[in-house]
Amino acid sequence: MTVPELRAAARSIWEASLEASRPETCLAEALRSTGDGFTVDGAHYPAPGRVVVVGAGKAGAAMARTVERILGDRIDAGRVITKHGHGLPTARIEILEAGHPVPDAAGVAAARKLREIVSGLSPRDTVLCLISGGGSALLPAPSGGVTLDDKQAVTSRLLRAGADIRELNAVRKHLSEVKGGRLMEWAAPARVVSLIMSDVIGDPLDFIASGPTAPDTTTFADALEIVRKYEIDVPEAVRQRLERGARGEIPDTPKPGDPMFERAHNHIVANNRRLVDAAAAAARRLGFRTLILGSEIEGEARDVGGIFAAVAREIGATGNPVAAPACVLAAGETTVTVRGSGRGGRNQEMALAWALGMRGWTRPVCFASVASDGTDGPTDAAGGCVDPSTCARAAGGDRAAEASLRSNDSYAFLEAAGDLIRTGPTQTNLMDLQILLAG
Amino acid sequence: MTVPELRAAARSIWEASLEASRPETCLAEALRSTGDGFTVDGAHYPAPGRVVVVGAGKAGAAMARTVERILGDRIDAGRVITKHGHGLPTARIEILEAGHPVPDAAGVAAARKLREIVSGLSPRDTVLCLISGGGSALLPAPSGGVTLDDKQAVTSRLLRAGADIRELNAVRKHLSEVKGGRLMEWAAPARVVSLIMSDVIGDPLDFIASGPTAPDTTTFADALEIVRKYEIDVPEAVRQRLERGARGEIPDTPKPGDPMFERAHNHIVANNRRLVDAAAAAARRLGFRTLILGSEIEGEARDVGGIFAAVAREIGATGNPVAAPACVLAAGETTVTVRGSGRGGRNQEMALAWALGMRGWTRPVCFASVASDGTDGPTDAAGGCVDPSTCARAAGGDRAAEASLRSNDSYAFLEAAGDLIRTGPTQTNLMDLQILLAG
Repeated sequence: MTVPELRAAARSIWEASLEASRPETCLAEALRSTGDGFTVDGAHYPAPGRVVVVGAGKAGAAMARTVERILGDRIDAGRVITKHGHGLPTARIEILEAGHPVPDAAGVAAARKLREIVSGLSPRDTVLCLISGGGSALLPAPSGGVTLDDKQAVTSRLLRAGADIRELNAVRKHLSEVKGGRLMEWAAPARVVSLIMSDVIGDPLDFIASGPTAPDTTTFADALEIVRKYEIDVPEAVRQRLERGARGEIPDTPKPGDPMFERAHNHIVANNRRLVDAAAAAARRLGFRTLILGSEIEGEARDVGGIFAAVAREIGATGNPVAAPACVLAAGETTVTVRGSGRGGRNQEMALAWALGMRGWTRPVCFASVASDGTDGPTDAAGGCVDPSTCARAAGGDRAAEASLRSNDSYAFLEAAGDLIRTGPTQTNLMDLQILLAG
Repeated sequence: MTVPELRAAARSIWEASLEASRPETCLAEALRSTGDGFTVDGAHYPAPGRVVVVGAGKAGAAMARTVERILGDRIDAGRVITKHGHGLPTARIEILEAGHPVPDAAGVAAARKLREIVSGLSPRDTVLCLISGGGSALLPAPSGGVTLDDKQAVTSRLLRAGADIRELNAVRKHLSEVKGGRLMEWAAPARVVSLIMSDVIGDPLDFIASGPTAPDTTTFADALEIVRKYEIDVPEAVRQRLERGARGEIPDTPKPGDPMFERAHNHIVANNRRLVDAAAAAARRLGFRTLILGSEIEGEARDVGGIFAAVAREIGATGNPVAAPACVLAAGETTVTVRGSGRGGRNQEMALAWALGMRGWTRPVCFASVASDGTDGPTDAAGGCVDPSTCARAAGGDRAAEASLRSNDSYAFLEAAGDLIRTGPTQTNLMDLQILLAG
C-alpha cells in the first residue's frame, strides 16, 4: 500500500471509531423505554413519579437528544449543560451553555438552574443524569467563601503545571457544592440514575466530571497535597478552605458507605475501549493485521509518539509485533508538559514527535492521533495524521519541526504540512485514539 | 502462573539475553581466522603485514580476550581501553583502564599510548579496532586549547541536562583529536577493520563511541546548537572552539566521501536486536506467547514504564495485544530528566513507575528493565524487577513510592522492596531490555 492509501485508511478507521462512540450509538444500545419506566444495560428502573433529566458534559446535547428520542414524553423536564457552541435543538430538555475548560459565570448560573429543577422532588421521582467529560468545568458551584475566579485560577494553574484530570478533579471536588457526590444532596429524596460516558482512565466514577453522583474517594488532605506538589500559587480563600478541611474543620465530601448513595445508580455507557474496539473492527475490515496495545495509555505525549515510531520501525525491520499490512491501535489520554509558548494539543504534539522520529523512513507508514471530542488543546483541530514526509513538507523542514516540538507549537507546523485532522465538535467525549498503519 | 514463578521466568529471560550478548558469543560468531588473515561476517581481510589490535569501550576487555582466542599469534601487538575495574587478564593485548562516564587523566594517557601503537604502520598493516559503548569517554584526546577539565565539565552538564548520547557525542567529536573519524589519521596508512558493539539506537557508525573510524555527519554548528539548546554553561575554551569552528576558522571533522575512509571497514557485530531476540527465544522456550514491541524504544523512562503498565492491564482485561501466558519485550535506551536529588537509573526509574501504575492489580504480572552493561545510572544495580506488590512491600508504601519517583530516588525504594536487579559488570554493553510477563 502507498502512503496516500494508508492515510485514507487511517481516516476511515478514526471516522468509524468516532461514529461508534457517538451518544446516538452508545445510548441507543444502553437505554430502553419500558411500559413502566426504562432499563439501562438491562437494569430495570420503574419510574412511577416524575422523570427529570439533568446533566453536564461536552456530549451533553447529543446525549439529551438521544434520551428524548428514546424516552419521549416520559420526560417531564430537563436541563443539561454543555460547552459554548455545542448546543443542539431539543424538544423537552433545555440545553444550557457554559465555559470549558475554564468555568465561567454562565456555568454558575446554569448549575443554579440545574439545582432548581431537581429540588423538591419526591422518593417516587427519578432523576436521569447525563454525565460526560467536561462536566466538571461545566457545572461550577463554588462552595462558600470561594469565588468562581478562585476556582478558575486554581484550574488554570493546575492544568498549566501538568496536573492530570484525577488531580485536577480531586482539588475541584473540595471547592464545590455539587461535585464529589453532592448532586445526590440536591436531588434528595429522588432516585438518581446516571448514564456516564467516561473520559478518565479506568472509569473511576468519582473522577468522571468530578463524580457528582458517586461517593468521593479523595479527601481535603489529598487536595491540599496536590496543590503543594505542583507548587502553584493558590488564592487565599482556596488555601484556607483546603487547610481547614484537612484539619477536619469542614465536613469532607460524602464517602463510600454513605446511605445517600443507596439512591444512586451509576452506569458507564461508553468508555474509550469503545473507541479502540470500533477502530480495530474497521481496521480488520480493511485487511490490516490489527493489534491493540492498550486502552489506558498515559504519559508525556511526545514520548508516546516516540514509542509508536519505534514500533513502526520494528514492523518495517522484522515484522514485529505484527507484520504488514499492520495496524497498531491504542487509546488513552496523554499529557503535555508546557515548555514553550506555542499552540497545539496532546494529539498534535504526539503526531509531530512521531513524524520527527520517522524522518527519512522509506517504507509506507502513517500515524494518526485524534481527540474523540474533536478538540485537541486550545485549537480547532482534533489531532494530526502524519507520515515520514511530514517534516520535509512544511517550510523550514526538520529544524522547524524540532523547534516547533520544543516550543509546544505543533499546530502551526502540522497546518503548514497539511497534516491537521479537523472533525469539528463531535458531540462525544471519550479520550484519544492512536492509529499506526504500515503497508 | 504465580508472581514468584513469573519473577523467576523474567530472571532466566534476562540472563539468557545477556549471555547471548556477551562479546565471547557475538565476536565468536562474527570473526574467523583464515590462513592469510581473517574474515568478519564473511568479508575477507588478508593481513600480509602486522596486525595491531586497539579499541575502547566497556566491553573492551572481553572483546580483546575473545579476539586473542580466535586470532592467537596472528596478533602482533594491542592496547585496548576499558573502564576502571573492568580489566581482565590477557596474553597479547594490553588492557588499559580509564574513567567512565566522565573521562579522566588515565584516559588521556591511555589514548596517547593507543596512538603510539598505531603510529608508523605501513599500508600492508592491519589495525583491528574493538569499539563498544563507553568508548567515547574512555578515549579522550582533547584538541588544542581544550583541557580534560573542560571536556569533563561539558560532559557532566550535558548529561545532567538530559542530552541523549547522540547529542553528547556530537559535541565531544568537535573537542577531540580522535573522535569523529580521526583515529583513521592516527593509523594512516594502515587499513582499519572495526568490530563494533552498538549501544546507540539505529547503529549510526559515527555516534557509537563517537565514531573514531567513521566519517562524521555532524558539524561544529550542530555542536554549538546543542550546547545552546540545553542552555548549559560551557568553559570559555570550549565555547571559543565551537564558535570558531562554526565560523569555518577550524577544519571540521572528516566527512563522508573523504578518501581516508577507503581504508576503513566498519562492522556492527552486535546491537540490541540481539538482546531482544535472545530474550524472545528464551521466553518462547518457557511457554510464553511472546511479542516484540521494538528494539529502539526511547523516551522518558517513567513514561515508558507507564505504557508497559497500560499494556499489562490490557492483557489482563482483554488478552490484547497477546493473551496470557504473555511476554512483551522491548529494547532501547530511555532518558531520565533529573528533577530531584535522589539516586537511581533509567531502568530502576522505569520499573518504579510501572509498579506505581500497577498498584492493586490482582492478576499475576511482573516487569523487569535491565541495563545490559550491568550498571544502571550511578548505582551498583543493573535495573529493577517489580510486581504489583512492590510499592506495598517497602516502608512508606504508595506515598513513599510516589515521593521516590518524584525525586528520581528509585534505587533506595527498590532496594527496600527487594526489587533491585544486580548482575555486576557484564563485560558487554548494548542497551536496555524490558520484559513484561503476565501469567
